[in-house]
Amino acid sequence: MSGGPALPVRVDEPRLTMLVEQLARVGAQPGGGIIRPLYSPAWREAQDTVAAMMGDAGLSVREDAVGNVFGRLPGDDLEPILITGSHIDTVVHGGAYDGALGVLSAIVAVEACAAAGGAPRRTVEVVSLCEEESSRFHSNYFGTRSILGLVGQDEPEHLVDLDGVTLADAARSVGLDPARFGEARREDFDAFLELHIEQGRTLVDSGLDIGVVDVITGFVWLEVVVEGRTDHAGATAMTNRRDALQAAARMVTAVEGVALDEGHPAVATTGVLRVYPGGTNIVPGRVEFTIDVRHPESGVLDRMVTAMRVQCEAVAADRGVEVGVRLLKETPPHDLDAGLRAVLQQAADVCGASWRDLPSGAGHDSQTMGTRVAAAMLFVPSVDGRSHSPAEYSTPDDCARGASVLATALRLLAWSPLGDEQ
Amino acid sequence: MSGGPALPVRVDEPRLTMLVEQLARVGAQPGGGIIRPLYSPAWREAQDTVAAMMGDAGLSVREDAVGNVFGRLPGDDLEPILITGSHIDTVVHGGAYDGALGVLSAIVAVEACAAAGGAPRRTVEVVSLCEEESSRFHSNYFGTRSILGLVGQDEPEHLVDLDGVTLADAARSVGLDPARFGEARREDFDAFLELHIEQGRTLVDSGLDIGVVDVITGFVWLEVVVEGRTDHAGATAMTNRRDALQAAARMVTAVEGVALDEGHPAVATTGVLRVYPGGTNIVPGRVEFTIDVRHPESGVLDRMVTAMRVQCEAVAADRGVEVGVRLLKETPPHDLDAGLRAVLQQAADVCGASWRDLPSGAGHDSQTMGTRVAAAMLFVPSVDGRSHSPAEYSTPDDCARGASVLATALRLLAWSPLGDEQ
Repeated sequence: MSGGPALPVRVDEPRLTMLVEQLARVGAQPGGGIIRPLYSPAWREAQDTVAAMMGDAGLSVREDAVGNVFGRLPGDDLEPILITGSHIDTVVHGGAYDGALGVLSAIVAVEACAAAGGAPRRTVEVVSLCEEESSRFHSNYFGTRSILGLVGQDEPEHLVDLDGVTLADAARSVGLDPARFGEARREDFDAFLELHIEQGRTLVDSGLDIGVVDVITGFVWLEVVVEGRTDHAGATAMTNRRDALQAAARMVTAVEGVALDEGHPAVATTGVLRVYPGGTNIVPGRVEFTIDVRHPESGVLDRMVTAMRVQCEAVAADRGVEVGVRLLKETPPHDLDAGLRAVLQQAADVCGASWRDLPSGAGHDSQTMGTRVAAAMLFVPSVDGRSHSPAEYSTPDDCARGASVLATALRLLAWSPLGDEQ
Repeated sequence: MSGGPALPVRVDEPRLTMLVEQLARVGAQPGGGIIRPLYSPAWREAQDTVAAMMGDAGLSVREDAVGNVFGRLPGDDLEPILITGSHIDTVVHGGAYDGALGVLSAIVAVEACAAAGGAPRRTVEVVSLCEEESSRFHSNYFGTRSILGLVGQDEPEHLVDLDGVTLADAARSVGLDPARFGEARREDFDAFLELHIEQGRTLVDSGLDIGVVDVITGFVWLEVVVEGRTDHAGATAMTNRRDALQAAARMVTAVEGVALDEGHPAVATTGVLRVYPGGTNIVPGRVEFTIDVRHPESGVLDRMVTAMRVQCEAVAADRGVEVGVRLLKETPPHDLDAGLRAVLQQAADVCGASWRDLPSGAGHDSQTMGTRVAAAMLFVPSVDGRSHSPAEYSTPDDCARGASVLATALRLLAWSPLGDEQ
């Protein structure tokens, strides 16, 4: 990366916008929003669409055993490879940018690099990861975990969707063979770069172009079960009740309070809450709800979880109900690779894009990739901070600027250091 | 009802207990509780079981067009007929007494009256009503409404269960013909007496044997819809959220507060609450919940509903969400027949049973019957006030005492006034 000041690599904005619009039609719902769960017909169509886009960009395309699609641009050195991309599955009624923009930006970025500098020194691959969202199974980061050899032997047969279909059967339905899943493992790459929308409003509110992610926030998922007593809603005096929902309402309020007390960037959310037996005229006997707690510092995260447990138990004692709090999932905060972050910062400067370091409140493939290889991420602004929603939007300008920063970073990393002068 | 002091009619306690246990096995679940939704196989078996019991008691049995089962003991005067009974459908995981005890007590009471006094002056019928609980369809009081000609033309084809089956198709599945539903209408009776468990703990706590219901509490069912904004649970700062569930939690808390502020016997319950889209890592964008509000005085009921609307709107304004409150159903308080109540009070005295007047917090067939004919109810104690639960229980002693009061009232009303002296 010597040899004089680097030149920016600019991607083709109208082309990127067109690709985003094209992929957004796959799984689009009549009332708005996109539904592309893992191994669904929409997912199959999306990966085929991306494969065709990669081919159009001059990449040699292959799909691995779990359905990750790779587009390769061979370099002078075959290994270790540099991979860039993101995922194409979506949450239910998700948007057109979460994941997809990282895949499509990577395609146009590699294409622009090749146009500007010819064949790279290092082999570069674009990846369209099969799954990141737990969009159908509790299989979070299934694509990345498959590449890294981190999928449990029994996952494909044990993970079931809401209809009771196993992940293995779902894979068969789109032409994959679960017996060969192990073949997806790779050890021929040493770096991963991911462009993603911010999904928050830090960049939008500060008027900056790019976020260089320094840490991916840790999170804890808890399940809380409140057991009260089912009673007749008409015949049971207010003072004789052990209403599980009235107790849960106070606990849910307390969950928010713990995050507010801790202050930004602490967040806590109850996104799922179920009431049993669920009759208009029946005092609820049981409530189950989830808590999603996040903070970039492990110590604070632990403190928040403890505070929530204590407050749930205090509410339960006060209202004569039982409460159980169970850990569902825990992911510690993950620091991204300092060397790659420096390249992204340099690339942003070269492109004249304003940037800041930024923690990611959401989890991403990069944190899992980062457990084995050097990984880094850049964020582009999300209008109004919206995500996991049909309202998700990033302007064509912001998308193209982000893709150009990615392209410039790829050039710095994988093309000849003298390429700028050639 | 002159001719000297009346004598009590005592029912056979072991026989009543046996009938209760026999019917409780129909629709019993392996893990406890009974499930007998309208027009299900368990429902069919229950009505057949009751019909056989009526036959054993010497009654002439017939089933009407909607599946109400009647057992008749003909009197000297054919009309107007006196009907007594209750319903045999249950809520999901209901108990063995709600409804069923009223049907079975009526059978043993009529049987005891006939044994003591021979043929009645007035024709008496026991009814096992097909539906009261909205146990499968939103068809509340379908049996009673069919008898009174109050079922809408389009109900059988428009009411659907959770699986999308219409009430009409469900009826066909148990051998009934929806085209003949209109034939269930009757105009040949002028009085209805119903024994029921209290479903609360007023009798248990005061140590009294019998409640003579003076008024059936009015109730209002509201549906509240809270619209916030779906956001990513990790990437959206606490201060940028419009979380529909956090708002709903405060509203649910306020619902309880309104009832507590009003004081006993006011009650208010949120029994159903649904969160959308319902993902652990998604800030809820929409919550729907119900409110069941009850009070025996219309004015107080109205005041409570207004207070809840005001408080829900205040929470919504405070938290930046939208709220809509919609009336689902409204039943005004219903005063039971003074003449029949006096007979029940007299019968309790004759039996040496301690009693008090009592409002009913739950709705019952008697309130619908009472819109057309004279209707009254008596309550027997519910252990621990439990109902709509597998834990529902009334002691054999309390059940038999209640059935004896019912029998004594039937004798006062339908047998020869000189019967006691014969």
